[in-house]
Formats: sequence, structure tokens, C-alpha cells
Amino acid sequence: MRTIDWADGKIRTIDQTRLPEEEVVLSLGTVEELAEAISSLRVRGAPALGVAGGLGIALAAQLARENGEDVGGAIRRAATLLASTRPTAVNLKWGIARIEESYDPARPRAVEELIERARAMVAEDEKINRLIGEVGADLLSQDSRVLTHCNAGALACVAHGTALSIVEVGHERGLVAGVTATETRPLLQGSRLTAWELKRMGVEHRITIDSGAAGLIASGEIDVVITGADRIAANGDVANKVGTYPLALAARANGVPFVVAAPLSTIDLDTPDGDAIPIEQRAASEVLEVRGARIAPEETEAYNPAFDVTPVSLVSAIVTEVGVVRPGADDLRVLVETARGTAGAALSGDGKP
Amino acid sequence: MRTIDWADGKIRTIDQTRLPEEEVVLSLGTVEELAEAISSLRVRGAPALGVAGGLGIALAAQLARENGEDVGGAIRRAATLLASTRPTAVNLKWGIARIEESYDPARPRAVEELIERARAMVAEDEKINRLIGEVGADLLSQDSRVLTHCNAGALACVAHGTALSIVEVGHERGLVAGVTATETRPLLQGSRLTAWELKRMGVEHRITIDSGAAGLIASGEIDVVITGADRIAANGDVANKVGTYPLALAARANGVPFVVAAPLSTIDLDTPDGDAIPIEQRAASEVLEVRGARIAPEETEAYNPAFDVTPVSLVSAIVTEVGVVRPGADDLRVLVETARGTAGAALSGDGKP
Repeated sequence: MRTIDWADGKIRTIDQTRLPEEEVVLSLGTVEELAEAISSLRVRGAPALGVAGGLGIALAAQLARENGEDVGGAIRRAATLLASTRPTAVNLKWGIARIEESYDPARPRAVEELIERARAMVAEDEKINRLIGEVGADLLSQDSRVLTHCNAGALACVAHGTALSIVEVGHERGLVAGVTATETRPLLQGSRLTAWELKRMGVEHRITIDSGAAGLIASGEIDVVITGADRIAANGDVANKVGTYPLALAARANGVPFVVAAPLSTIDLDTPDGDAIPIEQRAASEVLEVRGARIAPEETEAYNPAFDVTPVSLVSAIVTEVGVVRPGADDLRVLVETARGTAGAALSGDGKP
Repeated sequence: MRTIDWADGKIRTIDQTRLPEEEVVLSLGTVEELAEAISSLRVRGAPALGVAGGLGIALAAQLARENGEDVGGAIRRAATLLASTRPTAVNLKWGIARIEESYDPARPRAVEELIERARAMVAEDEKINRLIGEVGADLLSQDSRVLTHCNAGALACVAHGTALSIVEVGHERGLVAGVTATETRPLLQGSRLTAWELKRMGVEHRITIDSGAAGLIASGEIDVVITGADRIAANGDVANKVGTYPLALAARANGVPFVVAAPLSTIDLDTPDGDAIPIEQRAASEVLEVRGARIAPEETEAYNPAFDVTPVSLVSAIVTEVGVVRPGADDLRVLVETARGTAGAALSGDGKP
């Protein structure tokens, strides 16, 4: 099943706030319902949010036409509302803009074409992530013991995921002995979401507290560390969920490969290096409250960054949908610009880059 | 106030399970009450447990004499009961044995002397930890920004603590700009206990999730990392609360000193190196349940070690009550054996090593 999709004129998605206890499928029939689902983190994950934004614009256009309203105005209102739900989510804005900008009221089938382009985004995301898995699984040896962080799985995308797509294909090929997932404080995406996906795949797995991973790597029980990425700078520095950098340090100190799995769209050639990546600070309450109860003294503050930066010197390989990049040896700019020239035509539903 | 002490013929201690919400002082009048307090983690921390064990033996002897019972038998029963409460706590057994073995029924004031020796243990622990603070504060520069892990504070000892004793003395000398404490999953000793102690000291502080510490160190906002130790091997490898090793890796990668604060009694010359230190695995439920609610799928397992090992190559200095040890340059065995010869007479109430 796709995490998010267009179904019967509505947006169908799984409610991630109810996992792992319950698998609740939502059918969102209005833009307001979608906005609530995004701001409440029922839909989350950079690629999934991009697709959600595009589908939301298509939904707005369809409803306006059904109700005999101005389609262009409805699209603009939907774009403003949806973009406000997660102000720092780059992919969300990208997905909204991609479909919004393609609307041409002069064409007779304008609304149908909008919906088709949004549905093509869904298919494209699924295809890219499966390719990442196939490319990355070639890096796995027999009986690989994988460590992963946060949730870089199907739930963050339309399907397959990035790091977990490599696990999925590796598991199909019989190469995966087991996966250790970090719990990923403060929001516990590892315990709640990654464990649920691994269980569904039938992959042997366990959770470690985040700070237990380094000792586990040192003990020789991990063969490869695979994470996703939120943004990759032009020099190969990787911004990802906070806690990725210490995993990369531990991997390097113990001779274990540290692999980043991400679509080419994650490589931001406008960002020269990690120092140029702003690190979002999140609410202290995420750290200092557990299920609504305060765990620290009242006056105590918290440092709660969403991301950290792993320097390119610690990155063994970046797995993309067009192949494996060795960021020390390969020039990311040349590679990305070359790949976008060919991959755009091959992978994109509308033929645009 | 001392975390644990002998007062009015009973054992007085603060209930650590109620912190930081409430400061509840317990007055334990029976060995059974003490055993319950230890097994429920109302008293915790290696040095505090050693003192608790010694005071428990004194309490048993006093009660037996009051009730006209056999003192030797009561001591043996108390030793067995108390040792069973935390089977892996080395200091608890050491504290029990130290007082139990000193009982000599032939002496007229045998019970009084037992109580005096137990009370001397309390005073000795307090004195050692204050000395650690004074020795360690000499390593701090003006406006030091300190990172610490878990709770190596007064609550783990009789008073002052180890890592936090350095902060306390440094704060008195006006050298501490602020302290960042890791929350320390799964039991959150940093958020619950260290933050409470820092607030009482009036030290500027904040909490970080454990996996946020590496990025914070890389950002240049930390001048020194100071932790306690549970056991130091003869070669200088340090076993401490899980999550210490990745902090040491991050400190080294960013040119920040990594300092371990521990009494000489923590150095175990019978353990040649870190590979010889067994790592206790704790219950998966500590990781997979939060306030009684399951956060991961039912079948999911957890890797939950209590400790990790930081190799001596990452340790900048070990601060003890007799001075700073540079484990790369100094021979721990010679140093400890020399110091015990003098320190035993200088610090121990009963003149025994």
C-alpha cells in the first residue's frame, strides 16, 4: 500500500500518529482536512509532504470545478493554507508549487491534467525510491547487520522509503540478517514507525536507545549504517535527523561503512557546505515532557535541534536513484547536473526536470 | 544536605523517584525499609549504594542489640537481604562487606564501633568527592561551557558528586558559564536529577537529547565534556553510563577535552582493559514503554545496555581525589598503589586501605 495516494477523488493516507497501535486509513475530501492532517503530523516525511502538497492542489481544483467556483482562486487559497502548516518543510512547498504552477486555465482539460500531474508525482516518488533500494542493495553483503536512524521508510515517502528501501530490496535478495533501529528521541520515529515497517516486511529487528548505537557499532555487531538525508550540500555534507552525526563518528571509528540514501532532489547545489545549512530548533516541550507530564524542573530549558550535519569526510557513499556517489571522489555538481538531464526525461511523468 | 546519612539512629535519604517534582526525605528505621528503598531506586548511584550498604549493616546491629537479639546473626541476615536488592552493584556489596567484616563481638563497644565506622564511610565519601571537585576545577578556564551525561552528582554519592563536584567548585570560583546535561535515556537521570541539582546550585543549564550532544560539540558551544565512571580498567578504558562513548568520540573529533571524574576506588586494577568489563543488559521495557504505555510494536525487541566503554585513547584526563591522571602518560597501576598507601591513611576513618 502507498502511504499517500489519490483514490476515488480524495487523498488517502495512513494516520501516522496512531501507529504502531492502530492502522487507521484516512480519506481526506477537503483541503482543510489535508491541512489538519499535515499540521498534526498524521502525514510526515519530506517526500510524502511534497506529494501531499501536490495532491492538495489537485483536490482544490477538483472541488472548485464541482462547485462551479473559480478554480484559479481555489488553487491559490489552497497553496497558502497548505504551505502554512509546516513552514520549514521545503518539500511541501516544492510539491505545492510544482502543481500550482502547471495550472493553465486556457486548456480545456486543465483540471483533469492537474490531477494527472499530481498522480504522476505519486508514481514518480514510488519509482525513485524503489530504484534507491535496488542501487543500494548492491552494497550489501550476505548476512548484513544494518543500523538505521529515525524513519527513512515508506511512511516518509509514497512507498519503499530511502534507507528502508535498501533494507526491503536487500531482504528480498536474502542479504539482511537483521536491522537495529535507533528509537530517535524526542519523537521516537524509530520505535513507532521504523519498527512497524520492519515488522510488516518480516525483517528481524530491534530498537536501541540512540546513545546505545555507538557501543553496538564498537562491539562489531553492525556491518553497515544506513540513514536518509534531509538536505545534502554541494560538497557532500549531509543534514539529517539529529543523531546522525554521532552514528557516522562511531561508524568511522570502527571501520563500518556509513551510507546515506536519498533521491537526487535532496542534493542542494545552492548550499555549498554544511555550515550553510540552517538547523531548525524545535519546542523544548518535546524533550522536557513525556505524554504531557513534565520530567525536568520547571525552569530547565532544552536544546532541541531537528537536524545535525555529518561532514562529507565521514560519508562512505550516497545512494541515489541513478547510482552510488562516492562524495570524496565524485563531483556532486557534475553528477547531479548530468543525471538531471537524463533522469528528468526518464523518471518524471510530465517530462519536466 | 547529604543525599544519605545516619540521623537519630535511622538512615535518612532523599527519595530520588519523586524528583524533580517533590523533595521527599525518607527516614528508614528497618533493614527491610532500606532494602525496599534500594530496589525501588529511591537510593541509587554507585557511591551512595556503597554507603547505604554500610549504614544498613550498622542499623541491623543497633536494632538487634535494642531487641536483645543475636547481633552477628542479624548482621548476616541484613547483608544477604541488602546484597540481593541490586545484584550487579559492586559498590553496594563492597559497602556491606566493609562494615560486616569489621564486626568483632569480643569488643565491649562492638555495636557503637560499627556505627562509628559506617558514619565514617559517609564522611569519607563526602570528603573524597569534594576533593575531586577541587582538583577538577583547576582544569576549568573562565566561562567554561560544560557538557555532562547522566547523573554524576550529589544524588549518586553522599554529597557533591564527581563530575558535578567539579561544576560545583568551578561555579564557586566563578568559572562556569553554563552546563548542558544530556537527558540520558532510558531513565532520564539527566532531565530528572542532574537538572534538579544544577538548579539548586544556581548554575545556568539546559537539557539536550542524548543524540543532540555531538552536533552541539561540533558547533563550538562546549569547552569541556565531564562525566563520571562506573569502572576504570587498569589501562585507563572507562566503563560508564551508555552514551558516554559517543560523547568522547564527538569531543575528540572537535578538539574538546573529555574528562572523567571518579574516586580512586573506581579504578579496578584487576580488569586489564575495557574488553574485560562485562556490559549489563537491562530490561527491554525501559526502552519500549513510556509511563507504562508501549511505544513499539508488540514483537519488537530492544538492545538496552546499561554501560558502554570509552577507550583510553579518547580520555584526556581522569580527575581523582589525589590529582589529575593523564592515562596516556601516567601508569594507573603505580599511581593507584602509591596513592592507596598514603590516601588510605589520610582519608579512611578506620585507617584501613
